Amino acid sequence: MKRNCIIGQSGGPTIAINASLAGIIHRAKSSEEFDNVYGMINGIKGLLEGRYMDLLEEFDDGDKINALKQTPAMYLGSCRYKLPTFQDDEDTYVKLFKILKELEITDFFYIGGNDSMDTVMKLDDYAKYINSDIHFIGIPKTIDNDLMGTDHTPGFGSAAKYVAASILEVVHDSLIYQLQSVTIIEIMGRNAGWLTAAAALARNEYNVAPDLIYLPEVVFNKDKFLADIHEVMKRKRCVVIAVSEGIRDENGHFLDDDSKYAKKDAFGHVLHSGTGKLLESLVFKEFGCKVRSIELNVLQRCAMHIGSKTDLNESFVIGSKAIDKALENISGHVMGFKRLSNHPYEIDYISTDVREVANYEQKIPVEWINKEGNDITQELYDYLYPLIQGEVHVTYKDGIPSYYSCKHLEK
Amino acid sequence: MKRNCIIGQSGGPTIAINASLAGIIHRAKSSEEFDNVYGMINGIKGLLEGRYMDLLEEFDDGDKINALKQTPAMYLGSCRYKLPTFQDDEDTYVKLFKILKELEITDFFYIGGNDSMDTVMKLDDYAKYINSDIHFIGIPKTIDNDLMGTDHTPGFGSAAKYVAASILEVVHDSLIYQLQSVTIIEIMGRNAGWLTAAAALARNEYNVAPDLIYLPEVVFNKDKFLADIHEVMKRKRCVVIAVSEGIRDENGHFLDDDSKYAKKDAFGHVLHSGTGKLLESLVFKEFGCKVRSIELNVLQRCAMHIGSKTDLNESFVIGSKAIDKALENISGHVMGFKRLSNHPYEIDYISTDVREVANYEQKIPVEWINKEGNDITQELYDYLYPLIQGEVHVTYKDGIPSYYSCKHLEK
Repeated sequence: MKRNCIIGQSGGPTIAINASLAGIIHRAKSSEEFDNVYGMINGIKGLLEGRYMDLLEEFDDGDKINALKQTPAMYLGSCRYKLPTFQDDEDTYVKLFKILKELEITDFFYIGGNDSMDTVMKLDDYAKYINSDIHFIGIPKTIDNDLMGTDHTPGFGSAAKYVAASILEVVHDSLIYQLQSVTIIEIMGRNAGWLTAAAALARNEYNVAPDLIYLPEVVFNKDKFLADIHEVMKRKRCVVIAVSEGIRDENGHFLDDDSKYAKKDAFGHVLHSGTGKLLESLVFKEFGCKVRSIELNVLQRCAMHIGSKTDLNESFVIGSKAIDKALENISGHVMGFKRLSNHPYEIDYISTDVREVANYEQKIPVEWINKEGNDITQELYDYLYPLIQGEVHVTYKDGIPSYYSCKHLEK
Repeated sequence: MKRNCIIGQSGGPTIAINASLAGIIHRAKSSEEFDNVYGMINGIKGLLEGRYMDLLEEFDDGDKINALKQTPAMYLGSCRYKLPTFQDDEDTYVKLFKILKELEITDFFYIGGNDSMDTVMKLDDYAKYINSDIHFIGIPKTIDNDLMGTDHTPGFGSAAKYVAASILEVVHDSLIYQLQSVTIIEIMGRNAGWLTAAAALARNEYNVAPDLIYLPEVVFNKDKFLADIHEVMKRKRCVVIAVSEGIRDENGHFLDDDSKYAKKDAFGHVLHSGTGKLLESLVFKEFGCKVRSIELNVLQRCAMHIGSKTDLNESFVIGSKAIDKALENISGHVMGFKRLSNHPYEIDYISTDVREVANYEQKIPVEWINKEGNDITQELYDYLYPLIQGEVHVTYKDGIPSYYSCKHLEK
């Protein structure tokens, strides 16, 4: 029996999510099991509106698949759409499965984070309820590295490499004046501090910065923060601090809750901005020295030009492994990595029941954070290092990176 | 007669200023004319405090010079110190020339921007006044590209490449949701918009963004700005805007003059932050759509990992040419580039009397800006393109770039 599959991307971008898409397309072709490989435009929401495309037609040669592998963000577009449960709204499911039936879909792949795995779980629940034999497989991705069921997430290693490299460059920049200065680098991560922790990888033979690291896993205390800086100032002129956007006080309030820009997304997550700016103002009031805050912003999730080769290759392979999983007629699983060893770095590809993954968050274990709550321990270094190894050599044209066209998303 | 030279770096960092230092050291060695090559620590201010180092001892082999060439910011540290005129304060000059005499300096090189060339001019003025035969040579550098006497400045091409590449990556990121959105990218440049103009180089076969470009050379009008966005929204869902931090209203007031962070540096320049944030708020109030502002911040001047090969090579050679100029016994000149041709790109190395350079600013000619005042013309493209060509392949170690140690600046 020939098969047809459909692939969607959802949630926030990383530079590796197209590599997983490329891996799925590549393996679907090489397996010779698939007549059609479709792509949902703008995820499950787009599919509900009947928007999809023929991926075998678009990616008809290996060069195009390779170019897709090295293209940031999401070729298929994304959505932030919370699927209702089928008990609450069966109509949506009826509509969706009607579309899947029309396309004769046998396998459904969804690349995303926590929220996207919620979608995979609900679709699989409904499929089982109506005895559909479509396979629903999740492929993880997030720069936050906060998914259960996997040692780490595709996309994280590249974001970590960008953060570490950028901080080293900022350190060089910060040292040039004979002034006492504090540089605060705000890094993405709402509840989990993995990406902020990766700032520690900027340290090398000559550089000990960042001097302080503040994670959402540790209750943030302003007085302790200022005392920490004061302590570093005794031995260093230029203090460099990595701080997660998601740090919270003892009442669990985000530091920038009072920000006028605070908005919520469709999942009810507060969208933050301004933690770095708030701390900048706090430090300036206390010390009166030169203070600068730098928000790495979306650059940390889209800087393909400094991607991690390890991350990109694993993201590609995990896509191809998802095809293999579907060919085993397994459904309701999320692909993942299992770490076998740090030195040498070795992983295995695994899968986990989506019910153990969806809507959970993997935070940094408390023993991987130092007792002071302002740095990481050696165990976390050992965990992080392998993920940023190797460089992606993107192609350049006319002086800028040459990526796969994203023009179809402009409509 | 054997010679001794001393080199200083001053002003804000670029990724290419150490390449010029490397070029000077390399040529000083190969010329075999110099017994000693000294480096001022923290520019003229450091020298006045007797802080300098032996550069031949530090850079005793070619590998080290090569590593220095590919290291961002300033190996020698910087200062923002305005030298008084010798008529106002001869003591400072007496002190300085006493130090130069003790070190038996014959040639003095200063790598910097407008303000640093003011230092070169004043030192040369005093040298002529007291009949000193020390040669004072300026080597330009600035990401602002606003110096007279040169077609473009070392450091600019790399910053331009970073800006263009980052904007292309942000464009990919911005397109993923089916939402109307406005993304505002704030780019450095107080009075001259060269670096903001380089945002246009993000355009390629499939990408027309940035859709609007606002330069300090054009009076900024909020109503016109909002009308421009409204116009783009008619044909595009996601609007991407490049804006200079230095845009001003019809009264010449910087947009963020009312910012609580507004501070002044030693030269009386207002230090800005917040133009992007202010516009974000303005656009959100008008359109109520998704709006994000991204401040490229210091990353645009220190991202060595995506430097322009053209820029880095020229910055190295202009350093070596400065040595040749001093060996011709010329003083009071600033090195520069003269463009011979765009296609193929060809330049010559020239020098200009520092009095025609110091304290002047080179802005974008009005005919290189479109009539609407929100984009650039083909002439400016043709000027900019050659400067971002070629990639610098930095060495990586443990997953992050490997630069020359900056530890000595921590003291």
